[in-house]
Amino acid sequence: MTVNDEVGSDNHSGVHPDILKAIETVNAGYSVAYGDDKCTNRTVKKFKEHFGKDIDVFFVGNGTAANILGIKAITNSFNSIFCAETAHLNVHECCGPEKFTGCKLTVVPTLDGKLTVDLLKPYIFGFCDPHMAQPKVISITQSTEYGTVYNPNEIKNLSDFAHSKKMLLHMDGARLCNAAASLNVDLAAITRDAGVDVLSFGGTKNGMMFGDAVVFFDKNLSKNFEFIRKQGMHLTSKMRFISAQFEALLSNDLWHKNAKHANNMAQFLCNELKDVPQVKITQKVQVNAVFASLPKKFITELQKKYAFHVFNEQTSEVRWMCSFNTSKKDVMNFVKAIKAVVS
Amino acid sequence: MTVNDEVGSDNHSGVHPDILKAIETVNAGYSVAYGDDKCTNRTVKKFKEHFGKDIDVFFVGNGTAANILGIKAITNSFNSIFCAETAHLNVHECCGPEKFTGCKLTVVPTLDGKLTVDLLKPYIFGFCDPHMAQPKVISITQSTEYGTVYNPNEIKNLSDFAHSKKMLLHMDGARLCNAAASLNVDLAAITRDAGVDVLSFGGTKNGMMFGDAVVFFDKNLSKNFEFIRKQGMHLTSKMRFISAQFEALLSNDLWHKNAKHANNMAQFLCNELKDVPQVKITQKVQVNAVFASLPKKFITELQKKYAFHVFNEQTSEVRWMCSFNTSKKDVMNFVKAIKAVVS
Amino acid sequence: MTVNDEVGSDNHSGVHPDILKAIETVNAGYSVAYGDDKCTNRTVKKFKEHFGKDIDVFFVGNGTAANILGIKAITNSFNSIFCAETAHLNVHECCGPEKFTGCKLTVVPTLDGKLTVDLLKPYIFGFCDPHMAQPKVISITQSTEYGTVYNPNEIKNLSDFAHSKKMLLHMDGARLCNAAASLNVDLAAITRDAGVDVLSFGGTKNGMMFGDAVVFFDKNLSKNFEFIRKQGMHLTSKMRFISAQFEALLSNDLWHKNAKHANNMAQFLCNELKDVPQVKITQKVQVNAVFASLPKKFITELQKKYAFHVFNEQTSEVRWMCSFNTSKKDVMNFVKAIKAVVS
Amino acid sequence: MTVNDEVGSDNHSGVHPDILKAIETVNAGYSVAYGDDKCTNRTVKKFKEHFGKDIDVFFVGNGTAANILGIKAITNSFNSIFCAETAHLNVHECCGPEKFTGCKLTVVPTLDGKLTVDLLKPYIFGFCDPHMAQPKVISITQSTEYGTVYNPNEIKNLSDFAHSKKMLLHMDGARLCNAAASLNVDLAAITRDAGVDVLSFGGTKNGMMFGDAVVFFDKNLSKNFEFIRKQGMHLTSKMRFISAQFEALLSNDLWHKNAKHANNMAQFLCNELKDVPQVKITQKVQVNAVFASLPKKFITELQKKYAFHVFNEQTSEVRWMCSFNTSKKDVMNFVKAIKAVVS
Repeated sequence: MTVNDEVGSDNHSGVHPDILKAIETVNAGYSVAYGDDKCTNRTVKKFKEHFGKDIDVFFVGNGTAANILGIKAITNSFNSIFCAETAHLNVHECCGPEKFTGCKLTVVPTLDGKLTVDLLKPYIFGFCDPHMAQPKVISITQSTEYGTVYNPNEIKNLSDFAHSKKMLLHMDGARLCNAAASLNVDLAAITRDAGVDVLSFGGTKNGMMFGDAVVFFDKNLSKNFEFIRKQGMHLTSKMRFISAQFEALLSNDLWHKNAKHANNMAQFLCNELKDVPQVKITQKVQVNAVFASLPKKFITELQKKYAFHVFNEQTSEVRWMCSFNTSKKDVMNFVKAIKAVVS
Repeated sequence: MTVNDEVGSDNHSGVHPDILKAIETVNAGYSVAYGDDKCTNRTVKKFKEHFGKDIDVFFVGNGTAANILGIKAITNSFNSIFCAETAHLNVHECCGPEKFTGCKLTVVPTLDGKLTVDLLKPYIFGFCDPHMAQPKVISITQSTEYGTVYNPNEIKNLSDFAHSKKMLLHMDGARLCNAAASLNVDLAAITRDAGVDVLSFGGTKNGMMFGDAVVFFDKNLSKNFEFIRKQGMHLTSKMRFISAQFEALLSNDLWHKNAKHANNMAQFLCNELKDVPQVKITQKVQVNAVFASLPKKFITELQKKYAFHVFNEQTSEVRWMCSFNTSKKDVMNFVKAIKAVVS
Repeated sequence: MTVNDEVGSDNHSGVHPDILKAIETVNAGYSVAYGDDKCTNRTVKKFKEHFGKDIDVFFVGNGTAANILGIKAITNSFNSIFCAETAHLNVHECCGPEKFTGCKLTVVPTLDGKLTVDLLKPYIFGFCDPHMAQPKVISITQSTEYGTVYNPNEIKNLSDFAHSKKMLLHMDGARLCNAAASLNVDLAAITRDAGVDVLSFGGTKNGMMFGDAVVFFDKNLSKNFEFIRKQGMHLTSKMRFISAQFEALLSNDLWHKNAKHANNMAQFLCNELKDVPQVKITQKVQVNAVFASLPKKFITELQKKYAFHVFNEQTSEVRWMCSFNTSKKDVMNFVKAIKAVVS
Repeated sequence: MTVNDEVGSDNHSGVHPDILKAIETVNAGYSVAYGDDKCTNRTVKKFKEHFGKDIDVFFVGNGTAANILGIKAITNSFNSIFCAETAHLNVHECCGPEKFTGCKLTVVPTLDGKLTVDLLKPYIFGFCDPHMAQPKVISITQSTEYGTVYNPNEIKNLSDFAHSKKMLLHMDGARLCNAAASLNVDLAAITRDAGVDVLSFGGTKNGMMFGDAVVFFDKNLSKNFEFIRKQGMHLTSKMRFISAQFEALLSNDLWHKNAKHANNMAQFLCNELKDVPQVKITQKVQVNAVFASLPKKFITELQKKYAFHVFNEQTSEVRWMCSFNTSKKDVMNFVKAIKAVVS
């Protein structure tokens, strides 16, 4: 029996048919490279419909690049960046942020992956002391690496706090669509309207093939970004193939449908597991992730059939992800496999 | 009348149908992310068929990344890199090489974009002097930014020289296929067999959508590359969509057919221009580029109809590129337009 | 009345007369620059007498440079470095380590500034996972930023642990002399013999004017250091003026006498404060620092007369330092001032 | 017979007695660290007397640091810097500028080490093109690495050109005093009054022990420099020992006397060599350096007695330096040695 990847990660899925079709369509004929093409222009307009007309938006190759280059644009090399200990920026970018920006990452322990002003305060000090990295950016992930969601007020509190300190709020939105679908709000409500300054907007985990967007809500922050992107190795020549994907994702509510479905499947999985006493759900299931702890031996057994991520070896906490193309049957099969293992 | 992009650059073309098909095929089902998938494994084998079995190969998002990250893998921050003044590495990567490696780029003026040992020698000194950047890498572009080609002996001379100084030879192969097709040799003949140590192998200018490969011909040089790639923001999650493209390109001689066609079209354009006295061909037409000088007023006029690159403002030298999907009719129309302008 | 600096820091003191004399003596005549002079050669021999004959030693301008450049020599850009949350490397080097090495600093909370294997273990993981910074260096400060001291066994435990993970042990020895004097051991006992791989050996806080030494206990680690030092802006031209100071410090037990005296004065201050109930000593007084907490209003009052550092605003914890030229009278006056303020 | 260092470099000399005395004087008592002391305040005022009252001045450890950190303050990582091929910045800083700023160094060949607008123009292009490093700084050395001098008008032409392109003019003034003494002007005439934006002002080659100053003529450019200096490892704790030296150098015309004497000795050496036909003076002798070419075998012979620098192996060009404490007798002995060798 082969190992299945259904619950490994939402990027184990392929490309949504509508997005693949958009790629095929944009392929016809010649097109100016490096983003001066018609499709990219249309897609920028589409972003403005969703995020507001005063934004600047740039496409890059992936989410790590979106995070690092977006933060590079708003920092000096002597700044510090504050994020949750579990942040992708901290754990899964191989100290790319440090290397490319020169900045210090100061990490804040959290219970659920969410920062609050109270959690942050003891870490933010040293303004004007030349011995110390100068606090500049608070970076949050929406939805978080624990599958939890900031509501608009929680984000507003953080941006107000940041701005009161002349700092900026960065959001890693690799799964922004899942958060918006979960809260049943539009994309601007948890970004521009909540005071976010710079956003990484990802689609790869929501049906795209590749590509990420860096969205600046204040054009003063983006004035050097074209150079930063090129120096940062992320000016794509045939850019229309990224923009066409985003155009499809942001049209016909595709972003919302895909995300909503993935969220629902995680909720369904969570519900199906309620009567399995050996499996303990460890985080609120707000988007498309289910975090659970179960005895190590069951994990080992289950991994023979399904590939998935052990989030915390010490607490036997695992992560099961659903995606836009996870089916109820996929979930049922997985639940069956769990029950077989623990029984 | 709209501006045409046919001769702007070989990356103004779209994706070759065989490659698009490969993308669609690989899209089915789930697949492990980050390069552990079956398609990537198959494609690595395909590379070994072409480049030799002792290589290590890694996929990244684009050619600038392939150059910078490949060189980062073989340098310390205090090294210097030697390249032609016209090298993409020097002119068109926005000092990304300097920023990401810390190294000095020492540029050597050339007439045709090609380095030779004699041209290099006066620039390479200072070994063991701690005040000076330590010479480490010679980087050449094949085919060059001037559309010229190194034959295997010329490359061997450079690699022998480099190795005699304990230096390494890097090759920017954004248009390697065009060079191999021009020389009518296989891909190993002008890379592994000629002593190249690290290669950027590009496909975007030869029918791919995105993606580039870094090929190491000595596995000792690549042992840290996985970390360098991730830190360098180029670990693609859905990697199968890059590898599938390369698999198609390296199958059924597609790489050769596409390149040969593009080369032929440039030759055709060159020939058609022989009886236009106002247009002077300035470089040998060995691959898919035609360099020519013509009076500035004609350039201005022609650019109203066709988008193309003025390579050197001072000498009125322009670059016209052909691609895998340039047709004879495209060329004829362009020649007609030139003749109309200069008459 | 002017503010006194006696207890501000041990670098508020000037230069010890023997060291100043050594500077004057070495000034006569011409001397080759950049470290090829006789005095530097003699001083390197002196270091070998103290630290062992297989070392490599290099002089740099200050302690921050010694830390950053020493660590740069033993890391790749994708590594992580583990240190106490209070480490100078983390708090007081303005993210120079991140900028110059590219590495991630992972900080471990401690009660007394001292790392242990048990404290470290939960933070060290991710080996071979390309998404994660690769663990490489454990950095400890001897004596610590809290004035506490590692005994030889404690260091050995850390170096054994580091080496078992193919990691290295770095020591920030800005106050190494104070630690050795406190333990009544020689300098090798708490460095080479305890398994330290790279050491920053500082003298500025122990009577020198400027200059620091980077000592490598394995010559394989130092083979690129000359280039790293120059690129790192710390190759001093008139190097004999640093080496002459170290030669004096390491001769006639000066390093020990100065450090012992400073330690004794801190002990004396600590004892004199025992009957002041408003002042609570918060850390063991093992070297030349006294950490104490006292009500904020008394701190404010006392700072009108004496400049000193508030280490922790939230806990009202202050730091009082003694140096080689602190006198009993200085201490008595300070105690008198405290008593006047709290009474 | 031992090798003499008299003509090796101006930094083979020791410290001028007045400067050593200033160091001894400032040593008394305690003093706040990191530049808040009285002596540093006095010295900043002294700088303002010489360079104008609107400047900002910061002390660092050496000239390489002054150059690199000064330029870091006025660049973004995607900028390019233009300097003469022979510039210290390019040749003798081990690609520290590239590593620490991320910028590209574009080097311009010159005959005498001096840049002109005409020489620069062909190299400065690419404004607003995101593929290209953005031109930002022209860096000149006064006096140059060839011992030649820019007059005030020549500097003004360069600064006007720079400013017309929204670029800035940086000056490496490691031997600024020699240039001013040669031109018989004050220090402001060839810096502030000529439009220089940032200056490295060195004293080590003119009688100081260590230390360099970064002078900003526009305070908007220096607002982050305190952080850049600390992150750049050049915040000296006992800073009074640098400032005291500068205070002495800038008092009682010491800077001028020392430089004038060194210049005169070079002129004297040049004159004495006029009747030695085997020695050809290759550059104007305007400051304290004599550049000459002589047959290789004589160089080898002479280097058995005198240590000096072969500037260009290919042209047999050597550099002989005089300093504040070179005596007529030193010169006469050296001339005698030359004559003995060539006869």
